[in-house]
Amino acid sequence: MISPYYTPTRVTFGENAEENVGKEIKRENAKCVLIHYGSSRTEKSGLLGKVRSLIEKEGIKTVCLGGVKPNPRLSLVRKGIELAKKEKVDFILALGGGSVIDSAKAIGYGLYNRNTDVWDIYDKKAEAEGCTPLGVILTLSATGSEMSDSSVITNEDGGLKRGYNNDKSRARFALLNPVLTYTVPRYQTEAGSVDIAMHTIERFFHAGEGISITDEIAGALVKNVFEKALICIDNPENYEARASLMWASSISHNGLMAVGNDQRGDWACHNMEHELSGMFDIAHGAGLAILFPHWSRYVYKENPERFALLGKLVFGIEEKGEEGALKTIEAFENVFRALEMPLSLKDAGISVSDEQIDEMVWKATLGHRRTLGAFKMLSDDDMRAIFKAAR
Amino acid sequence: MISPYYTPTRVTFGENAEENVGKEIKRENAKCVLIHYGSSRTEKSGLLGKVRSLIEKEGIKTVCLGGVKPNPRLSLVRKGIELAKKEKVDFILALGGGSVIDSAKAIGYGLYNRNTDVWDIYDKKAEAEGCTPLGVILTLSATGSEMSDSSVITNEDGGLKRGYNNDKSRARFALLNPVLTYTVPRYQTEAGSVDIAMHTIERFFHAGEGISITDEIAGALVKNVFEKALICIDNPENYEARASLMWASSISHNGLMAVGNDQRGDWACHNMEHELSGMFDIAHGAGLAILFPHWSRYVYKENPERFALLGKLVFGIEEKGEEGALKTIEAFENVFRALEMPLSLKDAGISVSDEQIDEMVWKATLGHRRTLGAFKMLSDDDMRAIFKAAR
Repeated sequence: MISPYYTPTRVTFGENAEENVGKEIKRENAKCVLIHYGSSRTEKSGLLGKVRSLIEKEGIKTVCLGGVKPNPRLSLVRKGIELAKKEKVDFILALGGGSVIDSAKAIGYGLYNRNTDVWDIYDKKAEAEGCTPLGVILTLSATGSEMSDSSVITNEDGGLKRGYNNDKSRARFALLNPVLTYTVPRYQTEAGSVDIAMHTIERFFHAGEGISITDEIAGALVKNVFEKALICIDNPENYEARASLMWASSISHNGLMAVGNDQRGDWACHNMEHELSGMFDIAHGAGLAILFPHWSRYVYKENPERFALLGKLVFGIEEKGEEGALKTIEAFENVFRALEMPLSLKDAGISVSDEQIDEMVWKATLGHRRTLGAFKMLSDDDMRAIFKAAR
Repeated sequence: MISPYYTPTRVTFGENAEENVGKEIKRENAKCVLIHYGSSRTEKSGLLGKVRSLIEKEGIKTVCLGGVKPNPRLSLVRKGIELAKKEKVDFILALGGGSVIDSAKAIGYGLYNRNTDVWDIYDKKAEAEGCTPLGVILTLSATGSEMSDSSVITNEDGGLKRGYNNDKSRARFALLNPVLTYTVPRYQTEAGSVDIAMHTIERFFHAGEGISITDEIAGALVKNVFEKALICIDNPENYEARASLMWASSISHNGLMAVGNDQRGDWACHNMEHELSGMFDIAHGAGLAILFPHWSRYVYKENPERFALLGKLVFGIEEKGEEGALKTIEAFENVFRALEMPLSLKDAGISVSDEQIDEMVWKATLGHRRTLGAFKMLSDDDMRAIFKAAR
């Protein structure tokens, strides 16, 4: 019946927020910073050079490691750990979106826990005792990793995608300038918005008692995310829409949306999606858009009123019970369609065999070392049925 | 255009949350804790004894100082500082509501800044370099001091009430058990709820650009607070209502409701109310219920749409412009009336002379050392007119 809430990240929100980076890192008494980033877009736009010089102006050394890809890879994490050890890095700056932040967190775990293999932490075979401190300049609104305790890494050896949560990895600071997301491509903005909304929705579908203020804030957030994501399709440089999406990304996954709930949420869609995008080339948000409506149709009878309440808060649906639940699920399908998301694996150009479904189910349960779901606990057969419905 | 957000307080929310107190203080490496509290209710209920033994079980010494009153007094703060110095206190536990927490913060400032008179900090003549660390067990939902950077102290010498904001005073932890508020008297619950709502409303009335997600979360919060406060009138032991009010109290004043706004809010009502309850015996929330509608009628023409938007989000008012603004103000008056609040000074049994109004205006501006208001900056004449309308 106890829920914790802990968000120590110092946030600076608004235009040019990234210009505080030197000051923020100096406050952390860092001597050598690893700047971790993804695409050449960060280099070409001049952002990397600007950030580097802001840090060096404070008399702090920098080393750079780019090349982070979506679904960040263990191999680059290992490379980062070696580089950071060699250069005596004592602070990591993630300059990018969720993949970059997650990769930075994994490097931080590897650097701090020198006698533990970093993959063992993600594979739930070892616990991290700490994490090298890190900060974030966010350039993509989606995963909420900038304020969350979580990160997800993909081990290319076997296509395993694993998440790990630990307060020690929460960023010391997050510099949130919505303008830096103006150039995020349309599809990435759309898929990212689904991810943002789903971080709240996963928490909304806890099984136990909760409090209405958290439900109502959750509803306001999801409603806002869909409205703003739709605006960004035609107006990628709309400051207010980009700003609301950016802040939604942070608070959707920092714990706010679970306060007062006696559980941390359902998370079956997220965990099943991790196997999907671990095995196939699909954006996380697109995978969630496929799975959530199919999961919903499979589980809603556990508590139709909960679905109807979400529909009322997000879409203004007045119907109650089963009718309200089904209207809510349809409304989600409609908004995902408007956001150009696939609604089936076929829509996404993915063909999945029964054997591949069995493999995903096995992996999602970590080989039966955990169960999935809280709103409804899923058996292997349940997961198979949901994956098959989604084909 | 930059807004900061920093809420490092480690929250534990739910039934029996206070039982974590020993563990939380041990984590802070404290050797001697000052337990600061208010009424004999805390002693008689057994809560003080329970908390004391939970702390001492961890091998940590405790000293107690009770007697904090609403509008906490400087004299008790000074007494607390002397006691804490003598006993070598290194951690302060506030066991109570906002007055206790504010008094604890003031003691923390006095203890940390040994060469500064603590009143100079509140009178804006000196800046605090730090604050002795403190934690909170909350027993009353109202001020939000459990997660905020602010505290308000009354100097009996001259009836001066002064607020001071500093991140250094943010609580290390807050243990939020809604059950502890079941015994809060009806009137205090009602007045406290108005204070909770007003912390969000003050921030809603900034003058510049803001972001819609913050507006919409603000609307959801205020709507919920009024609904739950009305439930508590007849059902003081409704867990869900008490829990929503408690969490609303914390997030209404921790900074969340200002993210993305290019200003920190208006705060004229709060600052004028501080003079009112500094001079007369009136609950802070009741003073706000009197002043807000009168302030609103005086200033709404600056931006009627902003009032109409608040009315839409909180009360579902569909009218726009001036009509929407006026309906919104009426709706606030109605809900305050339903919460048994006074709507004028006369309602509250207070008679105020012109000279007293002049004195409050002079004090509210710190003798013309600051201006009041952001949505509309108020001249002395504006403040006089609002106080007179409220008579």
